Amino acid sequence: MQKRQLEELLQQVKDGTVDVKEAASRIELTPFVDIGYAKVDTQRELRQGIPEVIYGAGKNAEQMKGIVLAMREKGQRTILITRLTMDKATTLQEQFAMAYYEEAEIGVVGEFPVPDCKGKIVIATGGTSDHKVAEEAALTAEVLGNRVERLYDVGVAGVHRLLAHADCLRDANVVIAIAGMEGALASVIGGLVDCPVIAVPTSVGYGASFGGLTALLAMLNSCASGVSVVNIDNGFGAGYLASMINHRTKES
Amino acid sequence: MQKRQLEELLQQVKDGTVDVKEAASRIELTPFVDIGYAKVDTQRELRQGIPEVIYGAGKNAEQMKGIVLAMREKGQRTILITRLTMDKATTLQEQFAMAYYEEAEIGVVGEFPVPDCKGKIVIATGGTSDHKVAEEAALTAEVLGNRVERLYDVGVAGVHRLLAHADCLRDANVVIAIAGMEGALASVIGGLVDCPVIAVPTSVGYGASFGGLTALLAMLNSCASGVSVVNIDNGFGAGYLASMINHRTKES
Amino acid sequence: MQKRQLEELLQQVKDGTVDVKEAASRIELTPFVDIGYAKVDTQRELRQGIPEVIYGAGKNAEQMKGIVLAMREKGQRTILITRLTMDKATTLQEQFAMAYYEEAEIGVVGEFPVPDCKGKIVIATGGTSDHKVAEEAALTAEVLGNRVERLYDVGVAGVHRLLAHADCLRDANVVIAIAGMEGALASVIGGLVDCPVIAVPTSVGYGASFGGLTALLAMLNSCASGVSVVNIDNGFGAGYLASMINHRTKES
Amino acid sequence: MQKRQLEELLQQVKDGTVDVKEAASRIELTPFVDIGYAKVDTQRELRQGIPEVIYGAGKNAEQMKGIVLAMREKGQRTILITRLTMDKATTLQEQFAMAYYEEAEIGVVGEFPVPDCKGKIVIATGGTSDHKVAEEAALTAEVLGNRVERLYDVGVAGVHRLLAHADCLRDANVVIAIAGMEGALASVIGGLVDCPVIAVPTSVGYGASFGGLTALLAMLNSCASGVSVVNIDNGFGAGYLASMINHRTKES
Amino acid sequence: MQKRQLEELLQQVKDGTVDVKEAASRIELTPFVDIGYAKVDTQRELRQGIPEVIYGAGKNAEQMKGIVLAMREKGQRTILITRLTMDKATTLQEQFAMAYYEEAEIGVVGEFPVPDCKGKIVIATGGTSDHKVAEEAALTAEVLGNRVERLYDVGVAGVHRLLAHADCLRDANVVIAIAGMEGALASVIGGLVDCPVIAVPTSVGYGASFGGLTALLAMLNSCASGVSVVNIDNGFGAGYLASMINHRTKES
Amino acid sequence: MQKRQLEELLQQVKDGTVDVKEAASRIELTPFVDIGYAKVDTQRELRQGIPEVIYGAGKNAEQMKGIVLAMREKGQRTILITRLTMDKATTLQEQFAMAYYEEAEIGVVGEFPVPDCKGKIVIATGGTSDHKVAEEAALTAEVLGNRVERLYDVGVAGVHRLLAHADCLRDANVVIAIAGMEGALASVIGGLVDCPVIAVPTSVGYGASFGGLTALLAMLNSCASGVSVVNIDNGFGAGYLASMINHRTKES
Amino acid sequence: MQKRQLEELLQQVKDGTVDVKEAASRIELTPFVDIGYAKVDTQRELRQGIPEVIYGAGKNAEQMKGIVLAMREKGQRTILITRLTMDKATTLQEQFAMAYYEEAEIGVVGEFPVPDCKGKIVIATGGTSDHKVAEEAALTAEVLGNRVERLYDVGVAGVHRLLAHADCLRDANVVIAIAGMEGALASVIGGLVDCPVIAVPTSVGYGASFGGLTALLAMLNSCASGVSVVNIDNGFGAGYLASMINHRTKES
Amino acid sequence: MQKRQLEELLQQVKDGTVDVKEAASRIELTPFVDIGYAKVDTQRELRQGIPEVIYGAGKNAEQMKGIVLAMREKGQRTILITRLTMDKATTLQEQFAMAYYEEAEIGVVGEFPVPDCKGKIVIATGGTSDHKVAEEAALTAEVLGNRVERLYDVGVAGVHRLLAHADCLRDANVVIAIAGMEGALASVIGGLVDCPVIAVPTSVGYGASFGGLTALLAMLNSCASGVSVVNIDNGFGAGYLASMINHRTKES
Repeated sequence: MQKRQLEELLQQVKDGTVDVKEAASRIELTPFVDIGYAKVDTQRELRQGIPEVIYGAGKNAEQMKGIVLAMREKGQRTILITRLTMDKATTLQEQFAMAYYEEAEIGVVGEFPVPDCKGKIVIATGGTSDHKVAEEAALTAEVLGNRVERLYDVGVAGVHRLLAHADCLRDANVVIAIAGMEGALASVIGGLVDCPVIAVPTSVGYGASFGGLTALLAMLNSCASGVSVVNIDNGFGAGYLASMINHRTKES
Repeated sequence: MQKRQLEELLQQVKDGTVDVKEAASRIELTPFVDIGYAKVDTQRELRQGIPEVIYGAGKNAEQMKGIVLAMREKGQRTILITRLTMDKATTLQEQFAMAYYEEAEIGVVGEFPVPDCKGKIVIATGGTSDHKVAEEAALTAEVLGNRVERLYDVGVAGVHRLLAHADCLRDANVVIAIAGMEGALASVIGGLVDCPVIAVPTSVGYGASFGGLTALLAMLNSCASGVSVVNIDNGFGAGYLASMINHRTKES
Repeated sequence: MQKRQLEELLQQVKDGTVDVKEAASRIELTPFVDIGYAKVDTQRELRQGIPEVIYGAGKNAEQMKGIVLAMREKGQRTILITRLTMDKATTLQEQFAMAYYEEAEIGVVGEFPVPDCKGKIVIATGGTSDHKVAEEAALTAEVLGNRVERLYDVGVAGVHRLLAHADCLRDANVVIAIAGMEGALASVIGGLVDCPVIAVPTSVGYGASFGGLTALLAMLNSCASGVSVVNIDNGFGAGYLASMINHRTKES
Repeated sequence: MQKRQLEELLQQVKDGTVDVKEAASRIELTPFVDIGYAKVDTQRELRQGIPEVIYGAGKNAEQMKGIVLAMREKGQRTILITRLTMDKATTLQEQFAMAYYEEAEIGVVGEFPVPDCKGKIVIATGGTSDHKVAEEAALTAEVLGNRVERLYDVGVAGVHRLLAHADCLRDANVVIAIAGMEGALASVIGGLVDCPVIAVPTSVGYGASFGGLTALLAMLNSCASGVSVVNIDNGFGAGYLASMINHRTKES
Repeated sequence: MQKRQLEELLQQVKDGTVDVKEAASRIELTPFVDIGYAKVDTQRELRQGIPEVIYGAGKNAEQMKGIVLAMREKGQRTILITRLTMDKATTLQEQFAMAYYEEAEIGVVGEFPVPDCKGKIVIATGGTSDHKVAEEAALTAEVLGNRVERLYDVGVAGVHRLLAHADCLRDANVVIAIAGMEGALASVIGGLVDCPVIAVPTSVGYGASFGGLTALLAMLNSCASGVSVVNIDNGFGAGYLASMINHRTKES
Repeated sequence: MQKRQLEELLQQVKDGTVDVKEAASRIELTPFVDIGYAKVDTQRELRQGIPEVIYGAGKNAEQMKGIVLAMREKGQRTILITRLTMDKATTLQEQFAMAYYEEAEIGVVGEFPVPDCKGKIVIATGGTSDHKVAEEAALTAEVLGNRVERLYDVGVAGVHRLLAHADCLRDANVVIAIAGMEGALASVIGGLVDCPVIAVPTSVGYGASFGGLTALLAMLNSCASGVSVVNIDNGFGAGYLASMINHRTKES
Repeated sequence: MQKRQLEELLQQVKDGTVDVKEAASRIELTPFVDIGYAKVDTQRELRQGIPEVIYGAGKNAEQMKGIVLAMREKGQRTILITRLTMDKATTLQEQFAMAYYEEAEIGVVGEFPVPDCKGKIVIATGGTSDHKVAEEAALTAEVLGNRVERLYDVGVAGVHRLLAHADCLRDANVVIAIAGMEGALASVIGGLVDCPVIAVPTSVGYGASFGGLTALLAMLNSCASGVSVVNIDNGFGAGYLASMINHRTKES
Repeated sequence: MQKRQLEELLQQVKDGTVDVKEAASRIELTPFVDIGYAKVDTQRELRQGIPEVIYGAGKNAEQMKGIVLAMREKGQRTILITRLTMDKATTLQEQFAMAYYEEAEIGVVGEFPVPDCKGKIVIATGGTSDHKVAEEAALTAEVLGNRVERLYDVGVAGVHRLLAHADCLRDANVVIAIAGMEGALASVIGGLVDCPVIAVPTSVGYGASFGGLTALLAMLNSCASGVSVVNIDNGFGAGYLASMINHRTKES
């Protein structure tokens, strides 16, 4: 409830068109729909400009179906489901039309929107093994209305590969740098561009990579400025934040 | 060297006004000034739009003086020195005019610029003990030409304090959320705003705060979207990134 | 053996009705029943006012059956079995009547008692994925004779959801706050209520949640007072402690 | 603002005795006093039944003085300052009367209250070296109006010492178990009593005690039920929570 | 080669019955039998008084068969195989007679020896779930010729259970204390007896037990003297060391 | 592009046989072949003297097939695929001839080269369980044209086994020391030889070996000089580095 | 109270020479002397055969003086104080005669006893820097009546140094192996001897030695049997346990 | 003792010029000089081709003086002392001539040798703050007879700085890459050169650099081949290993 709406309500109280108890209870009114096992946040789009996303891990197909149906009833056109395993996806697809991206473990209910801003997001990865996370980021950003350019397999051990794409990187509004192992990609890109770099450590690697911890720590300690970090393998979070920045960036 | 400059040079080779060996060596020419113990990166402003900053920890006063003088000769108007201890600051102040901010351990050589964009950065902290890091972020952002609003001591244990400032937070182009202990501030702010939130864990706390590790991990695991994280106590990094985002944000 | 019983025994020694060696050995008598692979603690109810609970992990169905039967012979009316996998439950159900709660992995032998105190325990969770642990806590508390109110899916990223239930929280004798990821729920609730808050970190999350370690550390570092913490995913421990506090709380 | 107050205000709006804008702004009125560097939470006593406490670490004497004076003006009779170093205490004592407990690093402004409930809190420690934390807990509980019984130096390596005090422990409304090293005290006490046990790990020990981490983990893994844990060395938190439980426990 | 053997050889060189090159090479002669993928250490019994043991993890059945056969050819009467999974055991049992203890995952080729010393080893465990490790220790000690007394399920949360067996513990030449979770058993036993206590942390537990790390750290920090620690779940190591101590202890 | 090639190109610009734009773009020309999901680095052999190797983990058979075919078209005679699971190997073997080494999980496409240098690499392991990693190292070195001597199962608990092979170790140009558990092998070998020792910690062990972390830390802290360390289980990295050193070592 | 004493007491009850209440309270009588801030355990010598030791860290000189005086009154002839800093030692020496060993930070009140058993304890160290811990172990063992042989500076990087002393090691009843860095000394010694080896990790080292954690983990993972571990830098614990084993070992 | 020497000795036994016991004892003769608190390893030069180095940390000036004098008597011309604090250096300089390098905390007794091989070692650092470790490496290598080229302050955030020196790097026989923070320098250099790269993580950085742990892990996970790692801040170890490799590399 906005201040303006509050004042209107109070005016109605004053005018006697709404009585006191009714008004008191409207002021306290909770801004969500309760469907028992989850509170669907239908005001989030208003509040944050972006549709709700369903985090699929830890929810069964039945629960997700319920949430999707509640959202669609409220008029949500596109719904993104992340961490959606193949078998749950199959179950959902029996209920409604849903595109499923197997590598990224992402389901999309409804149409992809046309990009609604001119700028682009570049997604760079260190190696072939980072694709899963990269695709989670890319599809998230595309669902949220962004143009995305994929720049995969440009790890720093062959730094000339990366430099060959310096122009592409410099045209971006925001770069998502995705890497496992030593995670140095974020630092090198951070030194090349003057836009925000969102670093995503991945759990790719072996031995002392400790499930992405090494890349995470390395990215947090980046000697380049303009780099910030999201959680290990959090392609969705990076895509979401990148979309937020991209949509708010002024055109150059 | 830009592509245009390269083409010009090649034209001169073709025209015979520059000979082959000379051209080959110009192409390889390194883009920095060597002063022995450090390579001052005078092209960074061009490349990244932002002046060089000196990281004071691990450098002695003599080294910093050399770097500052080299920068000034190249025409740098404002120079920021972070992690500058009081005693080194005193030594530098004997060499040239420098404002010193003791709590933030920051020195500023030259004038603060007038803010060159309309948007603002809000810096929120969880408690009184986070001020040092917050001031490092705030002064960094101000040196880089931003309007900054400080919203200190709004930790989540009294969540009404924070909610009372919701409007202030929603007006920001970017919010820096600074907290130690359990670092929950970033999550709560992330749920309130629709602009990027840069989370800075601080080493404030005791026992199992492990020098900021707990806040760092908590912020990386934020259940709110739009939140990314920089290193523990890295006020500078947050201020720098916030400035980058703020300058690039379109006016609403 | 209570002091009174000891004195009685000594009196019998004095009276000559019990001889010295017999008395010496009764004083040393062990207060439990030995069934070979486990020592069933039949005095615990006397000593602690609460029935024995069987921790199902690491015990096979045969062992659990033996323990249950020994308990029932001693007159135990309700027996709770935690961490009971589906397959072991099925085996047990062939031996005696037992209700099985699949999500919570809990088996209950015998009737649920009628709540024997007026106060209530509120169990709040951060998200849908914390239900398993929450149900373990809730069923434990209910078996132990408490009224339980479930307040699920009120994570701090949408802090208004939680605030909408502030009255419910303030009516509790004790609140159990269950959350994974950054575990901030405990801090925010701790700031809203004036009763004890038992925080339960869950292993829900990915990447740097490290199996609940992040939530655990965050909860231990809560900036709110009145919060204490039990082990990761330890819904039983929280339910048990909450029952203890609830039964001992005076009516307001 | 209570619902009743809100309804009264709305009635006044209806009656025309308060105008709309005035009412709207009262509804949004923030419930604290802003003194610039800190927001003193004068409603906390109302909201939580317990006076504000000042966490002294990370605040300088000047800041603490300001907070104390603001509190006293609001009528706070007793103010507790924790983590107060000797030198800051001396500075504060020049400003107003304050008792200073050196071992516990605690300052108390104003009188200790008379215990306002019959139950008692027992504080048990593993060894001489845990006294500092124990005194922080004990003084906190006493300032908050509790009867406290100290049971120091009863570590489990001589378990008969502890058993000799079993009656004392069983009389408590709540026990605070404080131990460093392997932290086993909490488990053994937890098995002896049927009231809540608050475990406080201390940073006492050497080698692989890792500043209290070992005791913390051991206490979280206690095989006894009814045990919960607060942060390492957090005597204040334990004393505060124990007071909360003690005041709410019904008399037996 | 013993010094005496060396002197004999040199005497033979002097006598001319062995020539120089032959002697030089015998001195360098390796004291083991090479079977390609493993060097069977047939001198160990001489050197250490105890037969070779095969660590089954990481070896396939074929490799173990080869080692067993080589050992038997050298006259080894009893061979212990630890960490032997059921399927590999079955394969081995097709080759030669071998007793297999499923819970302990131990195979024994040949006869158990008659105990060759009077003293006894007591093996105490915290709970039912520690049996696997306890049996590994017990069988190892028995294979090595010791009398073993099992004292299972005497965890410290019911410390009276343990105290009831104090005499049994005090009769031991060495006690093996096996516990997971908070590992306090070792400390309490260490305070009761005056013989060496070998503590074995187990990976039993959940949440912050971190696969036995908590018990390991707790045991290393035991406040009782006379306690030393072996690796997590290392029942074999404890049984072996206990046997070594037991055999060398003088009779009282 | 070598400097000589650059000068030739510039000469052609001068001569007018290549025009300016063409030259500018050639200078920027990227030195790799883009096949979509991976950039095959065909210049690496020139640049580093060693053929490309495919890291099989995280790539599916289809991707690997594509990379192999692209390499072979470019004339690569021998291709090494590491971390290649049996099932993917089988799929690849349907496409082209490939030798598969199951224990080492390595595939080799094409012929093993004849050793092209006289020196040898010695590969020593602590126990039978380290063979997998050792074979990865050995096969890698052999594919890269080295003579390899395997010295397996010489762990330090029987240090005489190792000393018996001292001459073999002293003849090496480089030693690879592979061990899990406490990783002491590297230190003991480092004290025996005067050539570089490459230490490879393995994830063999249990309990507090923490997947190789213990061996890794121990090797990094080796008290012997001349020892450096690669990642846990990184047999390939050790074999590659050993080959590099071996080929560059002068003959003695 | 021994069983015999209990029976005597009961006989006296029967005989009427002791009355019932008196007897009941004697049975419950606590077996220690309470001096307020510490409970001196005067029965320990009876119970464990070894005098009390004072752990000096975390106790001030005044407290230690009180404990020493209480002990001497009870007839304790030799008192060991560990972790005793120079300044506290000086204060104590003003109160009573006490030898102070600066390197080991140990004070000894009273005479060293004559060794009361024939066997010897060998204490081996990896390097000069481990002396402090070694002397703590050696002095502890000597105070407890043992013959000690010091074998310092025999680290494994020069394994021949250690082998040269193999006979000395083999003559021991128990070996204490003290080492920092990679802690390999324990494994190599464990392979050479057939008596128990007590491993003491030290905090000597730098970088990734992590204050002794690396040596600790390495020792726990020792591939040699017969090795157990005490806490980092715990020279006292090792000396105490070694004394216990040495006194109980039969003469060969 | 070399095999040749052993055969000579045996010949003398045969000839009767040396008797059996004498020979037996010579064979066992220890190859070092015992000066009480340290065993100086005078055979190391023979065995390893490189002079002994004194690790200064944990040794007092008196001990170091004794070791130096013993070495000089044995004819050692150049002695390196690492981790030598200023005050100990001053004490030593009163005893004999010694050059002291304050930044590197290194003392050199005797003359630097003339480089005895043509190849060079390149030492690259990420930033000004890594100089201390770099100088330890550089001085070590120079003392050991190598030509060293320093390439300081070429961190990857400005990757063009590093690329500008690619030729210098490619001319090296071995590169030492020294960096703190995210440690990416090693990976980028590893991709540029075809000689061994020794990576040295430094403890430079703040927050989540964890005293060099982040750089250490990152370097171990380097995606470039040919990289191995030494301990955090271990400039000496890197310099020593680099010298070993450099002296053994054939001239190209």
